[in-house]
Amino acid sequence: MEKNLEILRHSASHIMASAVKELYPDAKLGIGPAIEDGFYYDFDVEKPFTPEDLKRIEDKMKEFIEKDYPFEKIMMKREEAKKFFSEKNEIYKVEILNEIEDEEVSIYKHNGFYDLCRGPHVSSTGEVKFFKLLDVAGAYWRGDEKNKMLQRIYGTAFFTKEELEEFLKKREEAKKRDHRKLGRELEFFSIHPEEAGPGLIYWHPKGSIVRSIIEDLWKKAHLENGYQLIYTPHIAQEKLYEISGHLKNYSEFMYSRMLIDDVPYRIRPMNCPGHILIYKTKIHSYRELPLRYAELGTVYRYEKSGVLHGLLRVRGFTIDDAHIFVQKENVSEEVIRVLDFSISILKAFGFEDFKLYLATRPEEKFIGEIEDWEKAENALKEAIERAGLDYEIDEGGGAFYGPKIDVKVKDALGRLWQCSTIQFDFNLPERFDVFFINKEGKEERPYLIHRAIFGSIERFFGVLIEHYKGAFPFWLAPVQVRVLNITDDVLDYAKNVYERIKKSGIRVELDSRNITLNKKIRESEMEKIPYTVICGKKEKEKGNVSIREYGRGDRGSISFDEFLKRILQENKNPTLTV
Amino acid sequence: MEKNLEILRHSASHIMASAVKELYPDAKLGIGPAIEDGFYYDFDVEKPFTPEDLKRIEDKMKEFIEKDYPFEKIMMKREEAKKFFSEKNEIYKVEILNEIEDEEVSIYKHNGFYDLCRGPHVSSTGEVKFFKLLDVAGAYWRGDEKNKMLQRIYGTAFFTKEELEEFLKKREEAKKRDHRKLGRELEFFSIHPEEAGPGLIYWHPKGSIVRSIIEDLWKKAHLENGYQLIYTPHIAQEKLYEISGHLKNYSEFMYSRMLIDDVPYRIRPMNCPGHILIYKTKIHSYRELPLRYAELGTVYRYEKSGVLHGLLRVRGFTIDDAHIFVQKENVSEEVIRVLDFSISILKAFGFEDFKLYLATRPEEKFIGEIEDWEKAENALKEAIERAGLDYEIDEGGGAFYGPKIDVKVKDALGRLWQCSTIQFDFNLPERFDVFFINKEGKEERPYLIHRAIFGSIERFFGVLIEHYKGAFPFWLAPVQVRVLNITDDVLDYAKNVYERIKKSGIRVELDSRNITLNKKIRESEMEKIPYTVICGKKEKEKGNVSIREYGRGDRGSISFDEFLKRILQENKNPTLTV
Repeated sequence: MEKNLEILRHSASHIMASAVKELYPDAKLGIGPAIEDGFYYDFDVEKPFTPEDLKRIEDKMKEFIEKDYPFEKIMMKREEAKKFFSEKNEIYKVEILNEIEDEEVSIYKHNGFYDLCRGPHVSSTGEVKFFKLLDVAGAYWRGDEKNKMLQRIYGTAFFTKEELEEFLKKREEAKKRDHRKLGRELEFFSIHPEEAGPGLIYWHPKGSIVRSIIEDLWKKAHLENGYQLIYTPHIAQEKLYEISGHLKNYSEFMYSRMLIDDVPYRIRPMNCPGHILIYKTKIHSYRELPLRYAELGTVYRYEKSGVLHGLLRVRGFTIDDAHIFVQKENVSEEVIRVLDFSISILKAFGFEDFKLYLATRPEEKFIGEIEDWEKAENALKEAIERAGLDYEIDEGGGAFYGPKIDVKVKDALGRLWQCSTIQFDFNLPERFDVFFINKEGKEERPYLIHRAIFGSIERFFGVLIEHYKGAFPFWLAPVQVRVLNITDDVLDYAKNVYERIKKSGIRVELDSRNITLNKKIRESEMEKIPYTVICGKKEKEKGNVSIREYGRGDRGSISFDEFLKRILQENKNPTLTV
Repeated sequence: MEKNLEILRHSASHIMASAVKELYPDAKLGIGPAIEDGFYYDFDVEKPFTPEDLKRIEDKMKEFIEKDYPFEKIMMKREEAKKFFSEKNEIYKVEILNEIEDEEVSIYKHNGFYDLCRGPHVSSTGEVKFFKLLDVAGAYWRGDEKNKMLQRIYGTAFFTKEELEEFLKKREEAKKRDHRKLGRELEFFSIHPEEAGPGLIYWHPKGSIVRSIIEDLWKKAHLENGYQLIYTPHIAQEKLYEISGHLKNYSEFMYSRMLIDDVPYRIRPMNCPGHILIYKTKIHSYRELPLRYAELGTVYRYEKSGVLHGLLRVRGFTIDDAHIFVQKENVSEEVIRVLDFSISILKAFGFEDFKLYLATRPEEKFIGEIEDWEKAENALKEAIERAGLDYEIDEGGGAFYGPKIDVKVKDALGRLWQCSTIQFDFNLPERFDVFFINKEGKEERPYLIHRAIFGSIERFFGVLIEHYKGAFPFWLAPVQVRVLNITDDVLDYAKNVYERIKKSGIRVELDSRNITLNKKIRESEMEKIPYTVICGKKEKEKGNVSIREYGRGDRGSISFDEFLKRILQENKNPTLTV
């Protein structure tokens, strides 16, 4: 986000707050920052705002903008400011002021509206020309569910009408692609916050078949590329997480203990410790390295209920995890291999643009030798550059235990989604005393690389739904073909067509209900089935089928054999380029 | 077990106890019953018995048998018996006597040895001619780990020498097949009681590839047979298990609660509630039934640490679970289908003999209508009879919520192993108010059938290891072929052979180490690899390979193409008969 756009939006949020205060004088102000796509402001009000309220607020904002009130900055002693907002009954501002240590604070004023604010702002309300209020949602004060729920109004603002319109158009399109909406409509998954708990995904048959195809492709690719599959348990004694350090460094994301025979256990937040236990069951020679253990490992992590979001932010998810034990001298080669492999798999799912982020050694808090960090960072950099991929360096942004590459994919709307991570770890090999026997017959510590390609299956499925708008490519579609009969007297033919398609291994359904053809076609379209195959008298006579292709409509009549040949071709998994 | 064999063995256990008391006068007696394959006696002794001790005890027993002491029954008042054993310092006998309510108890005596015992016994020690002490192991008094650990000596006895020898031979063979031993030697799995906890299985690459093949076959078969795959989370709020009744009726097998945002959650002991949640997300028509949800669902259940046993008795396992919602009128047909499907899959893994058990309505505690029970029991009976399978009726042995069929497979040693279960459930559909819309447009309660074919993947893998002695059929073997070069100058040819086999999708390894051919062959045999392929000069000249087949030795030299054709044929998954 550019700096001046931030100023513009922050100013718009003040204008919105002043409009709300004018219309709802009892509303108490929370905070109102600019955010990535616009701005918001939180209000403590009796009743949630309705869409009609938003319209009124927008109109009032337009009025204020028309009048072009200047923004003024006022400096005030902190104690004076506290008194000032206290008198206005702005309890949230007072709460913030209580936590500010500065002696003096700045307050921005326009048209009799005062807000505690660092600024800066545009010079007058008239500069905010192209804005729009977008949405309203409940939001706990300070994101903490123990606090009161405020009403958050979202809006956005741009410098030009074109930019605003483009944004709104894209936003509408994004709404249509919302994986939560499509996930419900297309029966991909459900969440049961009431009975089972929020953030836990129930995969329905149509989502599960896609997941199963994703997982099968993943497994096959890994076996062909020198990985070994493993399976490890979802729970372990706390002792294991004491050794790994997760209890110490990661416990805020872990669920509380369970007791088994009075021994404390935890449900795992990560798969690493289990993989290391398997590694350590025998002594490994340098000849066996790089040793690559891969697991579709389901983990459970705490996320605040407020940030949970469909498949993208959940409390239980399956990492397409791998841990690679590698000799220091082979680390560059291995990272290149991992990156190529990741990109190749992401490409197989239809992503073409990637943005990479290389997070390097933190300034102060880090473990291991600087020399090892540099070696690891260079390996990562070399891999990215060799692959010719666009990247940014996040200087000092690595975890304390090693540098990493994050890969984001660009979707059909140009949005970036975090998927793959390639993470060095100088910590766990030390903690678990992991070693191999080197060429000299001596014990040597290997490097450990954690990596995930999809990130998590849940998240990746969410991204796929939004990318494809739920209309998956043929090989990935839950139902690939639906066969319709026009009338009952061609049902035998339709059944025959259906059986032959089914026998060839294609996921096919037969709609033989006694309803109109149009209704059948409409339902097939609604379910985004790639091919709708219509069997009527003419088709039966010629041994043909009439084809409708999702998104392209009527594709004419062709012989059944030709159609079958075509779909069998389309059904092949995409070829990986590694 | 025949009754008189039980008497013989129980008598042998008394003779053993008298021998122990003679040799170790301080040993305190626990209990000494006959069991399925012999007998045992528990002793409280300072030091565990060694194999040499067992030999001494056995010799002493022979001496007593030689002397042919008569067994005498003595009746004693309970209080008198307490005093009697108290004076002998037999505290465990006194503990048992404290819990007996009878006024009078029987005591059996031979050669000055007295034991509290219901009897009966053989008339004299001389009748126990063919016996053998087998093993010694620690066993908590009364199976409770809070009690002292006693030493349990196992033995067996038979009426004929031939029977004893046959038994010992089979026992030796069973030891060689022990899946825990083979699992370690062949690197199939490990358990880490110290770091991670007992009863939790870590699947190593070689075990995991077998598991993956089992799971793939299972998934494919289910999709082809009208099942729909689903995935559900491993944890849920307690609320879900309150609805399902598991918290009330099953909590002793469940781990304690975890808190998430102060809400209590449990790790699941069963998959059913999750499947029902998915069913209930929409209204189903009778047209959709039978609706079959299948999941490889990992669950966690409490088992006492003393009964944990390798892969067969664990604390975390993956049920190859399915829940079928079916109309009452279709229930017979569906059970027949499920049974055929189960048997067909078990046959695919090489099992040919099955023994079925039909457990019917308990006399008193049961829910639902008797009419429904009868209908369900008849459906089960009809399915078994139609399949022409051997079965026993376990009258009144069903769970309170429905009758069931258990399927045991007979392994290569003739041992029976519990695998499939087909279980009716009249309880959960009520508790979750599950319904469908019937032909009349009215809500109707479906039948619910739980079923698993393998039982659990862990257990089934254990049974497979023991059945095949770790030497899996070609299609299931973790490594199918190992290629060896005799000398370095044919390494290029060996590599070429290896690459071509690998490319065809066979799991192949190349052993190019500079060691003797004999050593390479020996290692390949040790790992029970189905084919060892030897490449020497002669083979290279002719484009041949020399083949060794596991268990059959040298199979001569054939052309590479012929060999490849043969293994590709053998690699096909077994065809299911459904």
